[in-house]
Amino acid sequence: VTRGDLLERTIAAIPAPDLDVAAETARLLDAKTKPPGSLGRLEDLACRIAAIRGSVPREALRPAIVVAAADHGVAVRGVSAYPQEVTAQMLATFAGGGAAIAVLAREAGARLVVVDAGVIGGASVHGVRSEIVDGARGTEDLTLGPAMPRSTAVGLIERGIALVGELTDDGIGIVGLGEMGIANTTSASALAAALLPAEPSSVCGPGTGIDDEGLVRKVESVSRGLVMLSLGPDPDPIEVLAAVGGFEIAFLVGVTLGAAARRVPVMLDGFITSAAALVAARLCPSVSGSSIAATRSPEPGHAIVLDALKLEPLLDLRLRLGEGTGAALAFPLVRAAVAILTDMATFDAAGVSGPSEAPEPADV
Amino acid sequence: VTRGDLLERTIAAIPAPDLDVAAETARLLDAKTKPPGSLGRLEDLACRIAAIRGSVPREALRPAIVVAAADHGVAVRGVSAYPQEVTAQMLATFAGGGAAIAVLAREAGARLVVVDAGVIGGASVHGVRSEIVDGARGTEDLTLGPAMPRSTAVGLIERGIALVGELTDDGIGIVGLGEMGIANTTSASALAAALLPAEPSSVCGPGTGIDDEGLVRKVESVSRGLVMLSLGPDPDPIEVLAAVGGFEIAFLVGVTLGAAARRVPVMLDGFITSAAALVAARLCPSVSGSSIAATRSPEPGHAIVLDALKLEPLLDLRLRLGEGTGAALAFPLVRAAVAILTDMATFDAAGVSGPSEAPEPADV
Repeated sequence: VTRGDLLERTIAAIPAPDLDVAAETARLLDAKTKPPGSLGRLEDLACRIAAIRGSVPREALRPAIVVAAADHGVAVRGVSAYPQEVTAQMLATFAGGGAAIAVLAREAGARLVVVDAGVIGGASVHGVRSEIVDGARGTEDLTLGPAMPRSTAVGLIERGIALVGELTDDGIGIVGLGEMGIANTTSASALAAALLPAEPSSVCGPGTGIDDEGLVRKVESVSRGLVMLSLGPDPDPIEVLAAVGGFEIAFLVGVTLGAAARRVPVMLDGFITSAAALVAARLCPSVSGSSIAATRSPEPGHAIVLDALKLEPLLDLRLRLGEGTGAALAFPLVRAAVAILTDMATFDAAGVSGPSEAPEPADV
Repeated sequence: VTRGDLLERTIAAIPAPDLDVAAETARLLDAKTKPPGSLGRLEDLACRIAAIRGSVPREALRPAIVVAAADHGVAVRGVSAYPQEVTAQMLATFAGGGAAIAVLAREAGARLVVVDAGVIGGASVHGVRSEIVDGARGTEDLTLGPAMPRSTAVGLIERGIALVGELTDDGIGIVGLGEMGIANTTSASALAAALLPAEPSSVCGPGTGIDDEGLVRKVESVSRGLVMLSLGPDPDPIEVLAAVGGFEIAFLVGVTLGAAARRVPVMLDGFITSAAALVAARLCPSVSGSSIAATRSPEPGHAIVLDALKLEPLLDLRLRLGEGTGAALAFPLVRAAVAILTDMATFDAAGVSGPSEAPEPADV
């Protein structure tokens, strides 16, 4: 089993979340002018962020969204409602500012990093960061053999690790994941089916809007991909990734691992980014403790993957676009969770009374 | 049945949501560079906002949060975990900027309007807008008789209508509701029990953290309040409000009606603000079409009231603080919903292909 040096070092550097810091954060929140726990999941989020960082945040985390795009050979199987050229077109729209994620990243005050991880015809788009490995644009058809060589998968993971290193050096404090790639829910479904494991029919859904016949083709494609792979009981995650995964998913596996090693929270988006997090968690189980689930997608595989990662999503808005849109929509909750820690007054400072010792009715 | 002139005129001016504008908004969204409907509830929210306004928004709506506070005579029954003086203390903390709602309103870019609708000892707090009617600070104990005279209820409603008129004249485009008042979940539970109608035990919950014995006292207090009221089958909402409601709830009934008349969306917060919206909807059924539910509170009465108003909350964060914190946390979703309308590129403008006419597998 060959892995790159950077990948090995990164996995070795990933810490478990710091539960002492989480407990310290909970105590700080209990001193604020509100009944204990009354801000519900916002308080849980603040504690989780502090545990991931290993320290209580003292100011807002600077957010970025990494949206990685690539093409998928399995698109020829008719598993998407859209033609393959849409991947390159959308890459240009991300960079041009008119795509949903471009709009929502601006609204969230997040830096948007658009990555070409292997888009057919995506070579020369301005504002796009090229992360092509081995000159590969578009994976092979996963129903006929491995989607990519193992070395390409490792190379892309390491590119993702390197990017997140640059971002954190530049002061980014939380990274959202986004993706685009016609047919990539088929790759994500195959990853989930192989790694959970699960039946292909239980994790495949309509994606961005395929019809019932397309869904049948999708389940068949995933099943064939798994047959080609002929898995043992504890499959090597990188072998699975190379067999059925997309280039953009491999890149996001790297972003997830790299962020965990840097103690930077990762905000997952929908099903595909969660499949990337699943691969990362199979490489290093502590990783799921560094992730935050933004949304619950209607795609049936998503809930199963989130359960496996022990993540409860913050939002449930029936989003099925991807691109990082759910992550962008969850960032204001992160800002709010940190702000209650940094900006709220304590009971003592505000001169507010705590609960009555023994609330009793007056003798009226 | 006496109502004030302003109240009568306001109710008469409330329009139904404009379904043609909602349909026009949906068409505009379908032309954007994303699969139709793939932004899920964000698209529904954009359509709803447009229908309430009667026009497609062309820029971000300027948000405000109105947090109204008052004291409750029923607090002597031991129905809250906190002593009554906390109401006045929190009023000062709202104005001073250290309360949760002050922090979250800032994060949301929302103007915070702090209203004293009848807080005991709340007279002289800087930064608080006094809306005391008939000099009343603190309601009477609703278990012994009406909480307030009918004229006071009408007066407070009209103060709320007047405030929202000022806000909309000043360019505010969406109003969030917030409240504070020790024992006010008891008032809200009594309103819900009377108006839905529902059993007191089904709508009473722990509020900000009362114990089991306190919950028994709360259910008893609500039941006694309903006995005092001796309702017919179709109770007059203002009579019910005067009998069991709080001053701050009456004020927020006015804000809700006034906003609906001005075609300004109202963002509800938790159980208490939703009880105010229920009173408003009983006065004028179109009102619930002008409301947006921010959060689902763990308080058992909240889901029942939201069902009655036909509202599905945007968030489910297990908040039980009130103050408008849920409304503030939902404002970024409103910004995002409007931004996808105003800022996203269309398929045509971006040169992106639509769905394939008939997606078919290649003959490989």
